[in-house]
Amino acid sequence: MKKIALMTSGGDSPGMNACIRSIVRTSISKGIKVCGINRGYEGLINDDIFELTSAHVANIIQRGGTILKSARSKKFMTTEGQIEAVNILNRNNIEGLIVIGGEGSLTGANILYKQYNIKVMGIPGSIDNDIYGTDFAIGVDSALNRIINAIDIINDTASSHDRTFIIEVMGRNCGYLALMSSIAGGAEYAFIPEKNINIDEIVEMVKQRYKEGKSRSIIIVAEGAGSASSIAKIFREKGYIDTRITVLGHLQRGGSPTYFDRMLATAMGIKAVEGLIEGEYGKMIALKGSKLYYIPIEEAISKKKELELDMLDINKMLNV
Amino acid sequence: MKKIALMTSGGDSPGMNACIRSIVRTSISKGIKVCGINRGYEGLINDDIFELTSAHVANIIQRGGTILKSARSKKFMTTEGQIEAVNILNRNNIEGLIVIGGEGSLTGANILYKQYNIKVMGIPGSIDNDIYGTDFAIGVDSALNRIINAIDIINDTASSHDRTFIIEVMGRNCGYLALMSSIAGGAEYAFIPEKNINIDEIVEMVKQRYKEGKSRSIIIVAEGAGSASSIAKIFREKGYIDTRITVLGHLQRGGSPTYFDRMLATAMGIKAVEGLIEGEYGKMIALKGSKLYYIPIEEAISKKKELELDMLDINKMLNV
Amino acid sequence: MKKIALMTSGGDSPGMNACIRSIVRTSISKGIKVCGINRGYEGLINDDIFELTSAHVANIIQRGGTILKSARSKKFMTTEGQIEAVNILNRNNIEGLIVIGGEGSLTGANILYKQYNIKVMGIPGSIDNDIYGTDFAIGVDSALNRIINAIDIINDTASSHDRTFIIEVMGRNCGYLALMSSIAGGAEYAFIPEKNINIDEIVEMVKQRYKEGKSRSIIIVAEGAGSASSIAKIFREKGYIDTRITVLGHLQRGGSPTYFDRMLATAMGIKAVEGLIEGEYGKMIALKGSKLYYIPIEEAISKKKELELDMLDINKMLNV
Amino acid sequence: MKKIALMTSGGDSPGMNACIRSIVRTSISKGIKVCGINRGYEGLINDDIFELTSAHVANIIQRGGTILKSARSKKFMTTEGQIEAVNILNRNNIEGLIVIGGEGSLTGANILYKQYNIKVMGIPGSIDNDIYGTDFAIGVDSALNRIINAIDIINDTASSHDRTFIIEVMGRNCGYLALMSSIAGGAEYAFIPEKNINIDEIVEMVKQRYKEGKSRSIIIVAEGAGSASSIAKIFREKGYIDTRITVLGHLQRGGSPTYFDRMLATAMGIKAVEGLIEGEYGKMIALKGSKLYYIPIEEAISKKKELELDMLDINKMLNV
Repeated sequence: MKKIALMTSGGDSPGMNACIRSIVRTSISKGIKVCGINRGYEGLINDDIFELTSAHVANIIQRGGTILKSARSKKFMTTEGQIEAVNILNRNNIEGLIVIGGEGSLTGANILYKQYNIKVMGIPGSIDNDIYGTDFAIGVDSALNRIINAIDIINDTASSHDRTFIIEVMGRNCGYLALMSSIAGGAEYAFIPEKNINIDEIVEMVKQRYKEGKSRSIIIVAEGAGSASSIAKIFREKGYIDTRITVLGHLQRGGSPTYFDRMLATAMGIKAVEGLIEGEYGKMIALKGSKLYYIPIEEAISKKKELELDMLDINKMLNV
Repeated sequence: MKKIALMTSGGDSPGMNACIRSIVRTSISKGIKVCGINRGYEGLINDDIFELTSAHVANIIQRGGTILKSARSKKFMTTEGQIEAVNILNRNNIEGLIVIGGEGSLTGANILYKQYNIKVMGIPGSIDNDIYGTDFAIGVDSALNRIINAIDIINDTASSHDRTFIIEVMGRNCGYLALMSSIAGGAEYAFIPEKNINIDEIVEMVKQRYKEGKSRSIIIVAEGAGSASSIAKIFREKGYIDTRITVLGHLQRGGSPTYFDRMLATAMGIKAVEGLIEGEYGKMIALKGSKLYYIPIEEAISKKKELELDMLDINKMLNV
Repeated sequence: MKKIALMTSGGDSPGMNACIRSIVRTSISKGIKVCGINRGYEGLINDDIFELTSAHVANIIQRGGTILKSARSKKFMTTEGQIEAVNILNRNNIEGLIVIGGEGSLTGANILYKQYNIKVMGIPGSIDNDIYGTDFAIGVDSALNRIINAIDIINDTASSHDRTFIIEVMGRNCGYLALMSSIAGGAEYAFIPEKNINIDEIVEMVKQRYKEGKSRSIIIVAEGAGSASSIAKIFREKGYIDTRITVLGHLQRGGSPTYFDRMLATAMGIKAVEGLIEGEYGKMIALKGSKLYYIPIEEAISKKKELELDMLDINKMLNV
Repeated sequence: MKKIALMTSGGDSPGMNACIRSIVRTSISKGIKVCGINRGYEGLINDDIFELTSAHVANIIQRGGTILKSARSKKFMTTEGQIEAVNILNRNNIEGLIVIGGEGSLTGANILYKQYNIKVMGIPGSIDNDIYGTDFAIGVDSALNRIINAIDIINDTASSHDRTFIIEVMGRNCGYLALMSSIAGGAEYAFIPEKNINIDEIVEMVKQRYKEGKSRSIIIVAEGAGSASSIAKIFREKGYIDTRITVLGHLQRGGSPTYFDRMLATAMGIKAVEGLIEGEYGKMIALKGSKLYYIPIEEAISKKKELELDMLDINKMLNV
């Protein structure tokens, strides 16, 4: 392989820049030219492509976001758009394509591989940790640290009052961030989309805590399980409990990546370039335990990652 | 004076613990006994009072919240409650009372002074910076730093997408936090209660920015000027602009106090004890420039602090 | 088992409090009484033991350090001291003992198990990551994050000048922290005790960078490979290169634990209690991949954990 | 004025970028062209000058360091170098020059003004807070916050052991950072260059604290009052006290500026441009209380800023 390209696509996640740096410098050290595609598939179709040098990626390992920017592309969802994308790759003599992103982005990469024979390699980047086959995607650890820091700060003020706080975190279909941050933040309960909510039970739990003198409660809500304001309304109406809400929003997605995400991103970047050289096409890099593997993108996008629901019981036990 | 008491009341703010520490150790070094009252006026009426030693306040200068806890008291709003409070102060031989808190808390202190001759001293503690007569209340600097850090983090991800972000900050009647954090965070605009909103103008500004290729915009909203979600709705309906929202909530109120708040709190605590010794009663400590003064609590609670609205123009100029 | 005890021993590490909380609440939920021993083996010999309740461990998951304090004990190194320790455990009807700490602390636990038949369980806590058999000890992830944050901050000022910075990190016999933080921090080189230093080569590298216009260099030094000031002296004398030094010291050991350390500590705490119940004695909890195992303490303390030295080459490649 | 230039010079300090942004956008809004000079006086002599646009300063308000870089210039200390500098300013039609920096940098500006009639304006930027005439220089508040955060982190681990910690901070001739951070960090003592050290007294104080059961002590040392390692040696030899040291180094100088520094830098930048327009030449912007003034640079560089030494007594009182 003489020339490859890479893009970041979908929602950005902390560590994407560390991954870009790793891919660029690994490629260069192996004598491969490497191009950056701006704004994901949209930029590919618009031929927004430029050669990346070592200097381009200096001093970015610690930066949040992505220097290649990201976007969603409607055009790429059409056959016409896909053909255009393939033509542009060929015209630029790009022999391999690395896509860093979530499920939607990987699905796009799989289409290029399966239908147009493009030699693609996927890297899982998503704060939600909803990508099947890998223990962690790039950005998850950073997002979790951001969330528990928020819980810690709110905890200060919560402990000074007799009050219940509701914190809304990301996760449309996946309660991973909510559940894990709840345990690590010492929160009392997490509402997640994977489990039917018996809100009466939770209202009762908070009331019971008041009776026991534990008058501070922190509840985490995954956005897919309801908004913080809707839960607050139920607490007020059913339990006459006054709550305060925080909606973290993109606070979870930005900021400097953690050590773990920088190392994961760096290692996945190296492995991705090596994979393309060794003929691993249509694959995604996956972390299992402490090792990286190649798995078919097909597999990653067709199966649903399960959440360990017994964590709910552990959270309960830890809050006796 | 042989024995004084202190309380924190109303919403907590970072630096209250530093102030408590300062009051306690200053009193002890001057041979005065000092008592802590838990949960503000509510705790006073319930005789929830205990002697504070130097050890009680060890290792708290850096902690958010307040070790004396805070609460709102309905009972204290009645004459009956006030008489009860006065009786308890007398029964405990408390000769002076220091109240750390916002406007409501200071109003309570003023009642005790004016109507019951209690020797009170007020210290302004409030993140909103809405207390007349002092340049800063304890907690404002910490809250502003917390907000600009949030803007910085969101900025990372904002810069990776072409998107508008709306961040809701505290300030029911006062746009100080919104306006100042907007300038220091490099945000494009701040909605504040002090100024009528011409939202069409702002929608137009964001659209204009898109046209100029500045496709990332960050808008700050003081809660008193509308919720982030209501502003988002208008952007969507009037401007077809997709936005992302964050509601900081009590994230602004917790966490470790900044250098400035620790020093302000420490200096105000010393000055408060000195004031009671020197016969300054019914006063509040006020920072003007770099010096502390005693001003009548009456004055602080009867006048409205004005916001410097020309800051809006400065913000505009800084975003050309 | 009806009653167990736990201690933290040796150097403290972030996450020890999260582990204490987890052990206490897991024990209570399983109907086991749990005692805290203050100041490690020293406290054990002094019978400084008290029953821990759920309230004792409220609101500590996010705190650095250890509420049980830690110390080194000379007395426990004598047979007399060990017999005294065993007597005190028996007198207090303590049936199982959990020790959280590094190699020295685990060696103590192994003596109690092998020579005195005490039912011990070890949990690896050490920021150095030098304990054999487990991928990570409690505190490593937090220390690494603290170090890379320091590198990031120094990087700001380094990029504003044409200068070389030397940062000394912990690691008397082990270059893990230095090497890993160097990669994740984007530093140019790490001096580690595991590899003979050819300092001329590094001086040459920095000079070469100056020639290429990359005039900012950051060098990490593990304390076991030399002090920052001694390395600075060599740079000055051999290369006429002016450097600036930072010695992180205990900055690496304190502060709030990261998400990873809180989860690891919590999971290891649960597993430790379960192990004692199930009859796993003289064992240490070890993380391999994403699972926890019991391994003999004997094994953990008798073998040397190897550092992956090819990471040095990866660091070099990433700084082309 | 149609065209001005600006430079950052000497040691960088957090907020310099916010100041650059403010100067650039204020100038543009007033119809003045503005040029950046890279690497201070060195860059001026080398004609390393370029026009700054609004886009150059986008997204830098939160960045530490300085995008214009900084350096020390030996050439500028010669008459020859100064004449060269003046010629280059004239050749580029630069009518006004803004210099952001510390005492040395301001002295250079004063030479250009007094001896060569260049219309200069100085802005105090220095973390040491040793510039006469202004309450604060840009960067001081950020440095102090960085230091107290370090103290907080070390405090965690200090509280877990019975140990004395020594933290070395910046300040060759000025103990401001050491003394103020000691108070705000809750440290027991600060060694500063302004006061003769009676180290026996401090060793005695630490020993006394051990006797009282307050076995954790934190000592701050300004570099001008001795190195942390030399103080540690004395503690060991005179008091048989084992200490642990941290040398913060450039950790104090980097990182994102605080709210206060961003606002101070922004306001000083606006005031500097306005001053040049209004004919205030050879002046420095000075903060007194909450207002900005113009004072002659001559005055700022010829007088010594005094440290309020009674703060030492306050620190003592707060640690009873």
